[in-house]
Amino acid sequence: MSAYEHLIDLDDYSDEDLDSIVTLAQDIVKYPRSYSERCGGKIMATLFYEPSTRTQMSFQTAMLKLGGTLIGFDNPSVSSVAKGENLKDTTKIVSGYADILVMRNPFEGSAKAAALTACCPIINAGDGGHLHPTQTLTDMLTLKMEKGRLDHLKIGVCGDLMNGRTVHSLLKALSCYEGNEFVLISTKELRLPDYIKDIITKRGCKYTEAFSIEEAVGDLDMLYMTRIQRERFASEEEYDRQKNVYILDTDKMAKAPKDMIVLHPLPRVDEIASEVDDDPRALYFKQAHYGVYVRMALIISILENRIHPLPLLKGEIIKDKHCHNPKCITSTEPYLPNSFKRSGDALVCDYCDSKL
Amino acid sequence: MSAYEHLIDLDDYSDEDLDSIVTLAQDIVKYPRSYSERCGGKIMATLFYEPSTRTQMSFQTAMLKLGGTLIGFDNPSVSSVAKGENLKDTTKIVSGYADILVMRNPFEGSAKAAALTACCPIINAGDGGHLHPTQTLTDMLTLKMEKGRLDHLKIGVCGDLMNGRTVHSLLKALSCYEGNEFVLISTKELRLPDYIKDIITKRGCKYTEAFSIEEAVGDLDMLYMTRIQRERFASEEEYDRQKNVYILDTDKMAKAPKDMIVLHPLPRVDEIASEVDDDPRALYFKQAHYGVYVRMALIISILENRIHPLPLLKGEIIKDKHCHNPKCITSTEPYLPNSFKRSGDALVCDYCDSKL
Amino acid sequence: MSAYEHLIDLDDYSDEDLDSIVTLAQDIVKYPRSYSERCGGKIMATLFYEPSTRTQMSFQTAMLKLGGTLIGFDNPSVSSVAKGENLKDTTKIVSGYADILVMRNPFEGSAKAAALTACCPIINAGDGGHLHPTQTLTDMLTLKMEKGRLDHLKIGVCGDLMNGRTVHSLLKALSCYEGNEFVLISTKELRLPDYIKDIITKRGCKYTEAFSIEEAVGDLDMLYMTRIQRERFASEEEYDRQKNVYILDTDKMAKAPKDMIVLHPLPRVDEIASEVDDDPRALYFKQAHYGVYVRMALIISILENRIHPLPLLKGEIIKDKHCHNPKCITSTEPYLPNSFKRSGDALVCDYCDSKL
Repeated sequence: MSAYEHLIDLDDYSDEDLDSIVTLAQDIVKYPRSYSERCGGKIMATLFYEPSTRTQMSFQTAMLKLGGTLIGFDNPSVSSVAKGENLKDTTKIVSGYADILVMRNPFEGSAKAAALTACCPIINAGDGGHLHPTQTLTDMLTLKMEKGRLDHLKIGVCGDLMNGRTVHSLLKALSCYEGNEFVLISTKELRLPDYIKDIITKRGCKYTEAFSIEEAVGDLDMLYMTRIQRERFASEEEYDRQKNVYILDTDKMAKAPKDMIVLHPLPRVDEIASEVDDDPRALYFKQAHYGVYVRMALIISILENRIHPLPLLKGEIIKDKHCHNPKCITSTEPYLPNSFKRSGDALVCDYCDSKL
Repeated sequence: MSAYEHLIDLDDYSDEDLDSIVTLAQDIVKYPRSYSERCGGKIMATLFYEPSTRTQMSFQTAMLKLGGTLIGFDNPSVSSVAKGENLKDTTKIVSGYADILVMRNPFEGSAKAAALTACCPIINAGDGGHLHPTQTLTDMLTLKMEKGRLDHLKIGVCGDLMNGRTVHSLLKALSCYEGNEFVLISTKELRLPDYIKDIITKRGCKYTEAFSIEEAVGDLDMLYMTRIQRERFASEEEYDRQKNVYILDTDKMAKAPKDMIVLHPLPRVDEIASEVDDDPRALYFKQAHYGVYVRMALIISILENRIHPLPLLKGEIIKDKHCHNPKCITSTEPYLPNSFKRSGDALVCDYCDSKL
Repeated sequence: MSAYEHLIDLDDYSDEDLDSIVTLAQDIVKYPRSYSERCGGKIMATLFYEPSTRTQMSFQTAMLKLGGTLIGFDNPSVSSVAKGENLKDTTKIVSGYADILVMRNPFEGSAKAAALTACCPIINAGDGGHLHPTQTLTDMLTLKMEKGRLDHLKIGVCGDLMNGRTVHSLLKALSCYEGNEFVLISTKELRLPDYIKDIITKRGCKYTEAFSIEEAVGDLDMLYMTRIQRERFASEEEYDRQKNVYILDTDKMAKAPKDMIVLHPLPRVDEIASEVDDDPRALYFKQAHYGVYVRMALIISILENRIHPLPLLKGEIIKDKHCHNPKCITSTEPYLPNSFKRSGDALVCDYCDSKL
């Protein structure tokens, strides 16, 4: 049991806790000066084991706007990690220097692993393809600020719905609110996985599927664009034939409602044509700026003990079982307790959520 | 039209604006404490797409001495750029985090391109071999502090006068002041280009040419040294034969006036012998320190709207024309408007200033 | 003669000066808030020519906790050094930006070399395998905090005693205190060099040698673990046969006194089993955290002129003699005065302390 209130996984928090973060963020947007000394004397460490300049700068800006200060690294080859130091030692030491530690790491479950032994709260800024909770909080604040609500919205999500962690997390979060309806826009190969669809319907929301932006865009409140990587298509010909269907341009925007907003977790590559940037409904840059405010709210909520997560490890320790996922943090950090949750008959790794 | 007062090119500013920056810098040198909270609560982002530690630290020190704070990167491989994000997206996002953005980028015209869509003022900290305006402001402050004036000076400039952007910029700036006289010291191959010579005479100043430091150094008020790269000589033999002519040592200093000052934009390699460092006339390290103060003055001037540049794009948009300079930012950022100025019959790229 | 009170080598300071740093550090541990503005408005530059994330973050945290601010680099390839700038020019310029400069550099004697011409005080954060004085100060503060004293202690040091600079420095420092006794635990090949043994006995302390942790651990007050690198063993078989003798695990801890503390300069690799971390006597992470406080005390002591080192160069300049150590800073920076101390008949390099 950790003594700190980490943010590892949004699922560890109640809807009330998440609401309170978004509500606090709205207040900070409105009265930023009232918060400019809120974390005076506090130090944030940003340990980025893989580069993500924008996420790192967003956290750093958030802490600076709260009057705090910064240490950290952004380059694994420059860190002690390069000398073979394990995650535990690095985070134990740095969490003794800092008041709050933000970590991005390519291994799934790494933030949870670090939180087990850290001497300060940890924020998960992305653990491989697994979780990226502050992106979802950013999306929620943007909706709240720009549409005025998180419920009774018709939301299109477009791109690689099979693999996109930001889409999965957003759908899970928004299906907690009444009356939301989702339009899932993707190729057949990249459809949303069934377990996410089950969550949506179990929580009382509806979804439909579509295979092009054009057919879906006519009555949306929000269109959430993400990238489809060239490699994801069945073949190069398939890619060439279909790619334009998933590129947002001014022609497709002409078919969308006047008050539909366009979001994107960024970076984009080709999936939104540059010409769309001048459309007042294109809010992806503003969305990035909202990300600073929601991170400010999160930092305050954690440092002031305003939110209360579930325990880090939810399963049981099974000594002779090992997670088989090569991207799981347990594959590189052998001292970690082998903890597994039960899901029906199956065992699910407590770190990376993959089935045994 | 940008809503912000960027510093891209000194030519965009009136002499009064430049004078006001230097005068403010002198005041900061004298009363640094009065300015120590001037930018409290403000954030500077330093985006260095190529390394230039000293320039970056100079800007960072300037902001810290004004009570501001810092975000940024210094390593392109670590930035989102490595994931293929274009200049516009990166600078739009970061300029929403920061209050002022300092950018160095190897492409010519990149700072201007970023300024077109940025959400905060941009300072050009070097765009390839094109412009480096804060170096020239540093040189001007050094002259003002150490010689007491910017006019009626006899100034030697030595090195690669053909390609040296700092020399070009300094000559253009100082030829605006009455009674300045320039001695251009270089090999025949590396002489100052005619268009700079034309600017000097058009503005009413004189110049002479010399082929060695020794013949020129006897009556100078200031000697501005720069590097001649080995590659610039006609041949290896030519280099070996001539290089010492352009190396400043104690023998040559013995021939110089007692009150002549020696400047250098740094880093130096061999062109000033290490023994000269102990000469009280060697002011290149002090010059680097003045650079902090002039950058403090610039940051204040921009954040407090004290200076007023010309519009960023001065030409007309010609849709089907493209700049041919492979180092121009338009070669990598296709969304940029193709803007060209007219110079006689020729078209000149509005970003990199090269002729079509 | 430098105008500043650098920390290059603990031997340059009196026992009173070192005591005063440790005593001040104890006070900071107790009343950290009283010191939170002590260095307001001051800038620390951390120039790390080779990566050492933890040491760099420790210094940065120390400065931030004193209300100061930070500039610096951690990646030589990104610095001007990559363009061929020498140590003198870089440190002269940066020491004009900063109020205090912390340097790590792989060349022996580099911090002393930089201090000769710097415009602010220099702290040596490691110059190759030569010196790392703030690690020793950290060890001393940890002992003082956890054992209540620096004298009358029985101290085991284990690992590569031949090459370990932290062990040498700690033994030299602790042998100044009355009644200390040392147990030197290593393989025969990696025994402590005679000149350190001589210092110990000359200062009135005793030592014994041991070849395993088990035989030594029974009556120690402190066990100081360090790494033995695989390459240091006579052969691969020798390594496999002996390595476990020098790995601390729970079995060996069971033989140790209840109040024995375990320290390690970190990073560790295999020499302390991860299971030991949960033992309350395992204080190496706490030790790392004490490192911040002793660095705070050091920064204050230097910036407020509370400590008074010997002159930097102690020998005589011999123009035609050159140090033969290829890792000595004089091998790459030819402008440095060739200064040598006399030790009996031999000449000792004033930078790297190797015999000519």
